Order: sequence, then structure tokens, then C-alpha cells
Amino acid sequence: MKFEEKTTHRETIYQGKIIDLFLDDVQLPDGKAAKRELVKHPGAVAIIAFVEADKMIFVRQYRKALEKTIVEIPAGKIDPTDTDHLETAKRELEEETAYQAKAFYYDTSFYTSPGFADELLHVYVAEGLHQVAQPLAQDEDEFIELLEWDFNEAWAAYQNGEIIDAKTVYALMFWKLKREKVGE
Amino acid sequence: MKFEEKTTHRETIYQGKIIDLFLDDVQLPDGKAAKRELVKHPGAVAIIAFVEADKMIFVRQYRKALEKTIVEIPAGKIDPTDTDHLETAKRELEEETAYQAKAFYYDTSFYTSPGFADELLHVYVAEGLHQVAQPLAQDEDEFIELLEWDFNEAWAAYQNGEIIDAKTVYALMFWKLKREKVGE
Repeated sequence: MKFEEKTTHRETIYQGKIIDLFLDDVQLPDGKAAKRELVKHPGAVAIIAFVEADKMIFVRQYRKALEKTIVEIPAGKIDPTDTDHLETAKRELEEETAYQAKAFYYDTSFYTSPGFADELLHVYVAEGLHQVAQPLAQDEDEFIELLEWDFNEAWAAYQNGEIIDAKTVYALMFWKLKREKVGE
Repeated sequence: MKFEEKTTHRETIYQGKIIDLFLDDVQLPDGKAAKRELVKHPGAVAIIAFVEADKMIFVRQYRKALEKTIVEIPAGKIDPTDTDHLETAKRELEEETAYQAKAFYYDTSFYTSPGFADELLHVYVAEGLHQVAQPLAQDEDEFIELLEWDFNEAWAAYQNGEIIDAKTVYALMFWKLKREKVGE
């Protein structure tokens, strides 16, 4: 593998509920030594969910890492027992929004921050939403406000800095391209 | 602030060269207690750099966190002494690619993974590139292959999984929208 960095030693700094932290000693391609700080994450799913053709679901939630409340598309971590990302996406959509979808399809995957973390995010698109009478319960420690915005409302939230999250900015670009295709 | 989580205790797990890790005890909006694992990161810049109207610069590099080589747009961390993100973007472009740009403008910012990290990425667009005779030296521990791809080459790399990084997928969406605007 091009430019491979061989691990000469790994120190486990922390093993937590969601993330682990390792400090690797590596040998660089030129033979020199370097250190790499590495966060291991189980991966996550995110859902671009259209309630109507031009209305998307967002969630407003407090993010402790940022010490502020931001707006994102629905998303959630992959559980150790999950075997199928599509099932994880369906569960997370229902838990966060109380919606199920007639059509659910895979869109793309990307690493959120490959410089220091291995979190891989899988993005799904959900269409034909209907509310569930008795939805799956939200995670105990999650407090979420549900939003249903048309494109202009969402774009305004992007312009004013309330949407400032990579996967949600991706969803807006996806939506913009979709709208341009159908000539809206 | 909506749904604010008050910090009742903070444990410093690790303070490193690039990232720090904290474990916060928080009080949730309903009064219950929870724990939050938080990675602090200095933030970064990324550059959507057009060598020609339909040719963008990419870098291929090994990412230890992923244990593989992937293709990304040029990017780099903000140094503690940096005061201006634009200057950081200019430096990182020159260090990684040996190019300077006639036009450099700000595009957007987003958090790469707000669920556990505060890394904020600032995206700039560079146009009118020219090679520098004696460019700034690359970081000692960075090994990079420079690529100049047209849209179809880049999109093919996305389809085959070599482009699998959030900021670079964003750059492709940005490029696609730009091309549709001018009718390419």
C-alpha cells in the first residue's frame, strides 16, 4: 500500500463507551519514526429524509463537543450487534423522528475525519414517510427537536450558521443537485 | 441554549500533539446524569483548488487511522500561532502541492463529527494556480502524491471508493453544482 506507515508500537490510552484512543509509533516510508493519535469509532448512519418532495427532516440537538445547539439530519451510531447498515438507518430514523419510510435507499459513505479518526458514515435516503403510532423509544440521553423544512428554510439555516455539520451540508448539496435536475 | 447539558465534572484523559480527550459528566435537560467523551481538535482548512476550469488538485496519502491510502483535497491543521484561516489555507496548499493561487476565496465551514469532536473545517476555493519555484517544505512526516484530475476522473475515483472522505465528497458536490451552472 502506497506510503504505508508500519506500526512499531501501540499504546492504548482510553477505551470508552463510544470511542477508543490509541497512540501508535509508526515507521514512515523513509524509515523515520513518527507518532499517530488515533480515535476508533464504531461508525454511523445518517438519513436524508424527505417528508414531501421539497421538505426534509432535521433535528435540533445540543452537542457537548461544541457546547452549542445545532441542526443536523437524523443520524446515529452503529451498535456492536448491528449487522446491516440499512436496518440501523431505519431504526435511527424511527427513534429520532417517529417516521418510517416506504422507500429507503443507500446513497454514499465517507470518513468524517480521516486525519485522526476512523468514523465511517453511511448515508441513506428515505422517501414516502409516514408517522408511526408507537415508535421506537429515543435514547435516554438524547433530547431532540424535530424540524420539517423546505429547501429555502434549510438554506437559510445554513447561511446563518445553524447548519454547520459536514453530513448535513452534504445533504443540502444533494438536495440542491436533485432540485436542479428536476428544474425547481 | 436549547437542551443545554451542564458540565458537572471534567476528567482530562489525554493531552496530545494534535488532539485532547476529555470525559465530561453532564446534567441532562431532565436532570439526569450522563457521560460525554469529547475530542478537542485545533480545526483545519481544506482547499478546492482548480488548476484549470475543469481540473482539480487532489492528494493521495496514507491515513493511519484507516490503515489505508485514500485521495483527498489538500488540507491541513490550524497551527496554534495561526491568526487567519485564509493564510493557513494558502500555506497548506503551497506545502502540499507547491502551488500558489491568484484568487483565493472562502466557501464554507463545517464540523466534521460533532457527536464526539469539535474539529471545525474551513473550506477555501483557489483558482489561477501557478507553481512556485521554491515552495514551502512539506511537513516532515507527510508523504503525498499529487494528482490533477478532471471531473470524470475524480468521479470515477469516488465511485471506486478511493475518494471516501467527507471534505472531498463535499468538493465533488461543489464541482458538480458549478459545472451544472455553466452547462458543462
